[in-house]
Amino acid sequence: MIHESAKIGKNVVLGEHVVIEENVTIGDDVMIGHHAIIKMDTQIGSRVKVGDLTVLGKTASSNKKMARQPKKTGAPLTIEDDAVIGSNAVIYRDVLLAQGVFVGDMASIRENVSVGKESIIGRNAMVENNTNIGSRVTIQTGCYITADMKIEDEVFIGPCCSTSNDKYMGMGNYQYQGPIIKKGAKIGNNATLLPSVVIGEHAVIGAGAVITKDISAGKTAVGNPGRVMN
Amino acid sequence: MIHESAKIGKNVVLGEHVVIEENVTIGDDVMIGHHAIIKMDTQIGSRVKVGDLTVLGKTASSNKKMARQPKKTGAPLTIEDDAVIGSNAVIYRDVLLAQGVFVGDMASIRENVSVGKESIIGRNAMVENNTNIGSRVTIQTGCYITADMKIEDEVFIGPCCSTSNDKYMGMGNYQYQGPIIKKGAKIGNNATLLPSVVIGEHAVIGAGAVITKDISAGKTAVGNPGRVMN
Amino acid sequence: MIHESAKIGKNVVLGEHVVIEENVTIGDDVMIGHHAIIKMDTQIGSRVKVGDLTVLGKTASSNKKMARQPKKTGAPLTIEDDAVIGSNAVIYRDVLLAQGVFVGDMASIRENVSVGKESIIGRNAMVENNTNIGSRVTIQTGCYITADMKIEDEVFIGPCCSTSNDKYMGMGNYQYQGPIIKKGAKIGNNATLLPSVVIGEHAVIGAGAVITKDISAGKTAVGNPGRVMN
Repeated sequence: MIHESAKIGKNVVLGEHVVIEENVTIGDDVMIGHHAIIKMDTQIGSRVKVGDLTVLGKTASSNKKMARQPKKTGAPLTIEDDAVIGSNAVIYRDVLLAQGVFVGDMASIRENVSVGKESIIGRNAMVENNTNIGSRVTIQTGCYITADMKIEDEVFIGPCCSTSNDKYMGMGNYQYQGPIIKKGAKIGNNATLLPSVVIGEHAVIGAGAVITKDISAGKTAVGNPGRVMN
Repeated sequence: MIHESAKIGKNVVLGEHVVIEENVTIGDDVMIGHHAIIKMDTQIGSRVKVGDLTVLGKTASSNKKMARQPKKTGAPLTIEDDAVIGSNAVIYRDVLLAQGVFVGDMASIRENVSVGKESIIGRNAMVENNTNIGSRVTIQTGCYITADMKIEDEVFIGPCCSTSNDKYMGMGNYQYQGPIIKKGAKIGNNATLLPSVVIGEHAVIGAGAVITKDISAGKTAVGNPGRVMN
Repeated sequence: MIHESAKIGKNVVLGEHVVIEENVTIGDDVMIGHHAIIKMDTQIGSRVKVGDLTVLGKTASSNKKMARQPKKTGAPLTIEDDAVIGSNAVIYRDVLLAQGVFVGDMASIRENVSVGKESIIGRNAMVENNTNIGSRVTIQTGCYITADMKIEDEVFIGPCCSTSNDKYMGMGNYQYQGPIIKKGAKIGNNATLLPSVVIGEHAVIGAGAVITKDISAGKTAVGNPGRVMN
């Protein structure tokens, strides 16, 4: 089903059973996989590839218990030229994927998130709302990027890293703040970052480390709790 | 494809290419996303929302090597009023989701599980079989809730927590028992709970902690192995 | 949509809206779920079950920043007799799943991977490229199996384990090497294995351990960093 209001460029290849809702724009030379769903207002540039069974432009939902009710509106999902999106992914409204971004299979990105040029969001990675990700960042498979986080350019986050933004775990009396990861820092696989920690420029966090305090620029921290080695 | 035996209420909005199998019941004012699959016998209340590309009511499967062969029958999946289910989720037969439950995108819940009122099963969380989850529980994104586990009311489990139920890891000579998490306990992100540990009422487990022994009510434990701080 | 070149055996049950591309071969008594996508050249044996919303035979993709560009060709995906694949899974071209393999819901397996007879790839597990997995191996829910890894027969890997293959995290000056897990070794849940570590035959790694060095055959290691106990 392609809504009559959709604007579709030249040489676009659409898979079987694709659903394109109202006010969608798709550039030239785009490939959309089978059973993909492009929700209303989504803006897709040229030469973008979208995998099978992927949802683009989902509106946030909630239940009564949730601390923060998502906004029902917001900007459309915008995907710039040359981006590549995998299969079975779910990307929300009010997300900007800059030129050449790669989003792996089964990854998900929530609303009010921007991802800079050529960055990689690995397979099965989950990115929560209100987070900014710089350019040429690598977020590997299975990472959890919490809400209210800032990741600067050229950061490398190994597989399965976990972050959090709520120091009091659901008590509701805390200004949520995710970790802040400065330019060029590297985080080893399955590391754990606590709310609001700052990882300095070019700092290195060892695999499996649990980081409870800020780590200065250029330092290396390992262990549980994480301690600086150098 | 909507099977002729399906009973569908008033003001139900069905997406494109929805599949509804035999003996499904759907209440009033329900929204079902595109390409969603509602398997036989599934019972859905009123004002429920189901995301795109989600499977409801899957029958368990197995191969020869599996220690426990799943039952081929069991009660239907029952989803009570006002529940919200995300996109690309997979929920099995013989699951009860009570009123107002929220299940995130890409989450999965296996058979013989009940989830109490208004609880949240986060995005990409995996819940195994034979587990009971109380009311107003929060299970955040990417958690792994093993089989044979009990989670009481108002528990909070941070993102990416991992649990297990098999002390001898596949040897087959052990009565499986997952962790038991008592009322109001809080578990930090990426914590690891070993088989059969009991986390007492209102106990707090630090982020990244590895819990190998029971933790008493009201205590806080951190580190690897986890030690009580207070 | 079933391409006219597809060869489909006897007693095959196809779900609704299945897509079968060119040169696919399917044996007898196979069940394919609703909205499943079988990409070109995929070879499926007899008595195989494929869940709903699953992609079989995906071709690898990439963006400019990726260290290694995937090959655009390679052998087809081959699934031997009696294999069972879950729902919402994504399996690539150039993968061999031997007889009786089980792949859970939402699992993904990338190119140039072989999985031996009767092995289990758990739900939501991610297997990267260039990895060999033996026979009767159990990889539980949510594990991350990195690229360039070798897992011998009868290994047991508990839920949520994480591995890595890049000692210098994206610097590009390192020969990638994932962990090597020898026959019958057991890895506890949420353990972290660093690049190129060797886990000896029948060694046991505790839940939540961070393994930075080789562990000898028959030894048990726990903690962060992992230390041998016996």
